[in-house]
Amino acid sequence: MMASTVAGASVLDAGIHTAGSLAAGIGLARLCLGDLADVVIVPADSATFASPNAIFVQTDHPIGAGLACQYAGWPVATDDFFAMGSGPMRAARGREPMLVDLQLIETADQVVGVLESDKMLTTSAVGLIAKDCGVPAANVQIAIAPSTSIAGSVQVVARSIETALHKLHALEFDVRSVVSATGHAPLPPPARPSDTVTGIGRTNDAILYGATVTLWVDHDDDAVNAVANAVPSSHSSDHGRPFAEIFKAYDYDFYKVDPFLFSPAVIAIHNLRSGRTFRAGSIETSILLRSFQS
Amino acid sequence: MMASTVAGASVLDAGIHTAGSLAAGIGLARLCLGDLADVVIVPADSATFASPNAIFVQTDHPIGAGLACQYAGWPVATDDFFAMGSGPMRAARGREPMLVDLQLIETADQVVGVLESDKMLTTSAVGLIAKDCGVPAANVQIAIAPSTSIAGSVQVVARSIETALHKLHALEFDVRSVVSATGHAPLPPPARPSDTVTGIGRTNDAILYGATVTLWVDHDDDAVNAVANAVPSSHSSDHGRPFAEIFKAYDYDFYKVDPFLFSPAVIAIHNLRSGRTFRAGSIETSILLRSFQS
Amino acid sequence: MMASTVAGASVLDAGIHTAGSLAAGIGLARLCLGDLADVVIVPADSATFASPNAIFVQTDHPIGAGLACQYAGWPVATDDFFAMGSGPMRAARGREPMLVDLQLIETADQVVGVLESDKMLTTSAVGLIAKDCGVPAANVQIAIAPSTSIAGSVQVVARSIETALHKLHALEFDVRSVVSATGHAPLPPPARPSDTVTGIGRTNDAILYGATVTLWVDHDDDAVNAVANAVPSSHSSDHGRPFAEIFKAYDYDFYKVDPFLFSPAVIAIHNLRSGRTFRAGSIETSILLRSFQS
Repeated sequence: MMASTVAGASVLDAGIHTAGSLAAGIGLARLCLGDLADVVIVPADSATFASPNAIFVQTDHPIGAGLACQYAGWPVATDDFFAMGSGPMRAARGREPMLVDLQLIETADQVVGVLESDKMLTTSAVGLIAKDCGVPAANVQIAIAPSTSIAGSVQVVARSIETALHKLHALEFDVRSVVSATGHAPLPPPARPSDTVTGIGRTNDAILYGATVTLWVDHDDDAVNAVANAVPSSHSSDHGRPFAEIFKAYDYDFYKVDPFLFSPAVIAIHNLRSGRTFRAGSIETSILLRSFQS
Repeated sequence: MMASTVAGASVLDAGIHTAGSLAAGIGLARLCLGDLADVVIVPADSATFASPNAIFVQTDHPIGAGLACQYAGWPVATDDFFAMGSGPMRAARGREPMLVDLQLIETADQVVGVLESDKMLTTSAVGLIAKDCGVPAANVQIAIAPSTSIAGSVQVVARSIETALHKLHALEFDVRSVVSATGHAPLPPPARPSDTVTGIGRTNDAILYGATVTLWVDHDDDAVNAVANAVPSSHSSDHGRPFAEIFKAYDYDFYKVDPFLFSPAVIAIHNLRSGRTFRAGSIETSILLRSFQS
Repeated sequence: MMASTVAGASVLDAGIHTAGSLAAGIGLARLCLGDLADVVIVPADSATFASPNAIFVQTDHPIGAGLACQYAGWPVATDDFFAMGSGPMRAARGREPMLVDLQLIETADQVVGVLESDKMLTTSAVGLIAKDCGVPAANVQIAIAPSTSIAGSVQVVARSIETALHKLHALEFDVRSVVSATGHAPLPPPARPSDTVTGIGRTNDAILYGATVTLWVDHDDDAVNAVANAVPSSHSSDHGRPFAEIFKAYDYDFYKVDPFLFSPAVIAIHNLRSGRTFRAGSIETSILLRSFQS
């Protein structure tokens, strides 16, 4: 990673003016997760996952790690910059309805965030982040990488647990009942630089068609049963082809994509209260192959 | 984990009055093992192991870790408490014949132990542990969790190597010839709280029908060959159905279960002296499914 | 490991007068790699890899780790000693053409190396290492283990990435374009002590018929495409039977073995510049079985 300063903020570049690395990707993922989860690279069976490597995530702080921190819920938009923002700075900003709902807002003297972008942070973007988080620019620390970089691909596919939790929250399941979680998703080949659509496509496909998430929850079986089958991406009408194709079919307008598509391929929910396991979804090797070889 | 004091002893609760966690389970396992082994959660192939997660253990101190410490050989029984005890405190107590046989007894100023129980430690139990170990109660440190908790399920299925070693010792194989070991077993869904039979059943089944243990030994081939086929649980007449069913069939009397049942599904013994590998047993996916879905 | 001193040099014995261990093997591997890579033992699917365990290596310093350090390119030969030498001491010696080509030579006050040998280091060997590296014998630190030991088997099969890089360099591909790498190879059973041919055979077979290496490179597709299919061992005319058989057929003369044989079974090259993946080779389970059961 290359360290620099933009308008007083500390910036770690993990893939724009540097090639980045696997370790930088793990570092980005841990920053996104507020260091509340373990993230490792593990070998994977290519015949199933269309990649020889995968990312395994494990946490006992699923809500803090996945929703308060990792979810990319802040569109950092100014006249000259746009990137989806994630990481603990979102809790300091505290404007997303999900953070309000779940009482995940906090005040902070220092903020840390991760931006997915192939362009360097601008002065106006630093100003926006500092203002929204209520800290001086000198107390803003940002790591940045494009989805097409090594580090960017690692950090996105470390989001398997987050997508399951976000989908459960959208399904009006009380995610505070989730005690622990693991997630596993194949590590896709980084796309060509500047081919952001393929970069976003492959990393999303790794989750949508390749991820398995296990949740340990403490809730009523009825509540779990009401949502379990709807968690995997297969429950979405947009499921069934690589994300880049879906995105193109919607004229690259994110807001037209079914928001319920964004979830893991497979979910297993161990209900601590009943001892029952609810499982749904399946790994879609052929779609992974089409995506990763595109 | 929640820390408290019972009759002067330090107690870490990892699943009675707290939900526990995966990290607490790893911590319990390491305490059981006297910190003489590495324990990690790894992704598993659900199609084979009936669970998306597994526990992998690795040690170069197999006898110290597995037999001197981890084996649950101490029934801590008083008028108002009962739990199987494991961990290094057993070596300080030093009464189990196996510990005597293998000269694994030690004196200690401080003792650490793990109890599998869904009830909190009582004053009489602390008194018994302190007396038997020859230390004041203030020098007793206990971690406790039910087999039905997240942490309890992790710590039990971290016992794959231990069961292989204990079985080998029972078969009169000189376990001091074991130099190094690895063990892998699926992580089962925790059972419903207070459903101890299912909790014990699933965690045992993870070992009996799902564990693979590799031992590097330095011994004569004849000695290894004489026992290798008898190590896997399949060599027991009780093998073939979930442990909870076996247990029920014996009216929940542990002493009626064939003691040779308690061993991994698969054993691979690399004999350093000859360069030969002895392998026996097989993973029983259908029994794992029946057990984990019960 | 057992520490001693030979002619003033510090020597760690990981398998000659000691049984060694898995942890010693990981330590040896990290020394070989100049501590520029992570090395872990992971569970493996025996049905595919003919072993329940594997070694997974990950690095963002592939050239430094694999070629400047790990490649066993120094035949440490004196009147009374012979062993292949690897580790960072090779860069301080700086005589191998590959190190010259790639400008990987460095000066050092202290040198660290690893020797694969079943005989202890001699005074003359220490003298040679010190002289060639330009340091006093007291500043030489050597770890040593036979290929037939536990530690030796771990450190050899941690060489998957290195073999891919060395083959690529031999194919005149500019390996400086390799940004990151992972490697996975089964951990074979150690051979009988002094049966060096089987020891070398099995550890080589783990790479030749069992290793998968992933490289993230930044280069032209034409350059990658020109070599990708030639990287796996299957491209060699000597491919197709256990290494010990090949070695015997050439009267145990290494120089008669096709040097292009020494490479992983499977290669996947992710080209960062194009977003394309080049994949070649296959795992050869039946040859692994023949080798590991020999």
